[in-house]
Amino acid sequence: MNSLPVKPLTAEAFFEFGDVIEMDQRASQPMNRGMAERFPSLAKVETYGDKARAVISLVHSRRYSMPHSIELIERHPLGSQAFIPLDDTPFIVIVGPIGDEVDVSQLRAFKTNGSQGINYRAGIWHAPLFTPFDNMNFVCVDRDGEGSNCEEWLIAEDERPQINF
Amino acid sequence: MNSLPVKPLTAEAFFEFGDVIEMDQRASQPMNRGMAERFPSLAKVETYGDKARAVISLVHSRRYSMPHSIELIERHPLGSQAFIPLDDTPFIVIVGPIGDEVDVSQLRAFKTNGSQGINYRAGIWHAPLFTPFDNMNFVCVDRDGEGSNCEEWLIAEDERPQINF
Repeated sequence: MNSLPVKPLTAEAFFEFGDVIEMDQRASQPMNRGMAERFPSLAKVETYGDKARAVISLVHSRRYSMPHSIELIERHPLGSQAFIPLDDTPFIVIVGPIGDEVDVSQLRAFKTNGSQGINYRAGIWHAPLFTPFDNMNFVCVDRDGEGSNCEEWLIAEDERPQINF
Repeated sequence: MNSLPVKPLTAEAFFEFGDVIEMDQRASQPMNRGMAERFPSLAKVETYGDKARAVISLVHSRRYSMPHSIELIERHPLGSQAFIPLDDTPFIVIVGPIGDEVDVSQLRAFKTNGSQGINYRAGIWHAPLFTPFDNMNFVCVDRDGEGSNCEEWLIAEDERPQINF
C-alpha cells in the first residue's frame, strides 16, 4: 500500500494540471458601475470534437470514509472539467500528467482550502471527485457533444495509493 | 415611478429567458460508482463569433440598498451568461424579451430561493446583478472572444421600474 501525501492546493502547484478557481491573490476588474468585481477568466473551458459545447451541471457527492484507496483514474480527452464547491468545505484533488498510461508514482494529491474550485485540462488524469469531509454540492462545467470523452484506468490492487487523515 | 412586482423564480416562468440552475425537482444520474449524482446540463453555454469560448469567472457583488430604481438594462448578443451563487442567499433577476429595444412594460423580476442560479440566453435583456440581501459571491460562466458582446440600454428617468421590499 502506497501512501499518497496530500499538499495544500495552490495555483502554482496545480499549473501543469489545470486551473485553480479562487479569488485569493487574483486580480479583479470593476463591473456594474462599481457595485461588483469580476475575477475574470479563472478557467478556460475546452470543448473539442463534433457538436461540442460547454454545459453547466450540478453534482452532489457523498462523503467518503477514511482511509481510502484510489482504485480508478479517469480522463476526458475532448474537454476540460471544472468543479466549484457550493459548500465551504475542502475536498481532495488527485491528478496525474498527460500520457497514454497512468504512472502511479506521478500522481499528486491536493487539499483545497474550502472555497477553491478546480478545472482539469483536457486529457489530465484525475481521480473521481473525492469528498472525505462531508457530503458536498458542486457546480460542474464540462463538455457535451459527440464522441467518447471518458477513459478509465484501473490501478492494480497492489499499486493503489492510499489516502488517510 | 413604476413598481415592478417580484415573483418567485421557477424554471417554467423563466423558460423564455434562459435556464434555472437548481437540483430541486430535476432528474439526476449516478456517477462515480454511486458516490455522486449529476444533475446534467442544467444550462447550455452559448458562445458565438470569432475566437469564442466559454470561461469561468468569479464575481463579488455588493449589497444594494432599497428601494432601488432600475436604470440600466444590458444584453450579450454573442453568448449566454450564467450566475450561480456561492452563498445561500437570494438575489433578484430582472429580464426582458429578445428585441432591438427594451420595452419597460415587458420587464419581469424574479426572486431566487437562495440556491438557484440562472443562465441568460444570448440576447436576453437583463439588469446587472442585483443583490439587495447581502454581499454575494457568484460563479459566472460566459463568453470570451472577439467582437462587441455587451449592449446597454439606459431607461428614461420617468420610466425606471422601482423595486422595494
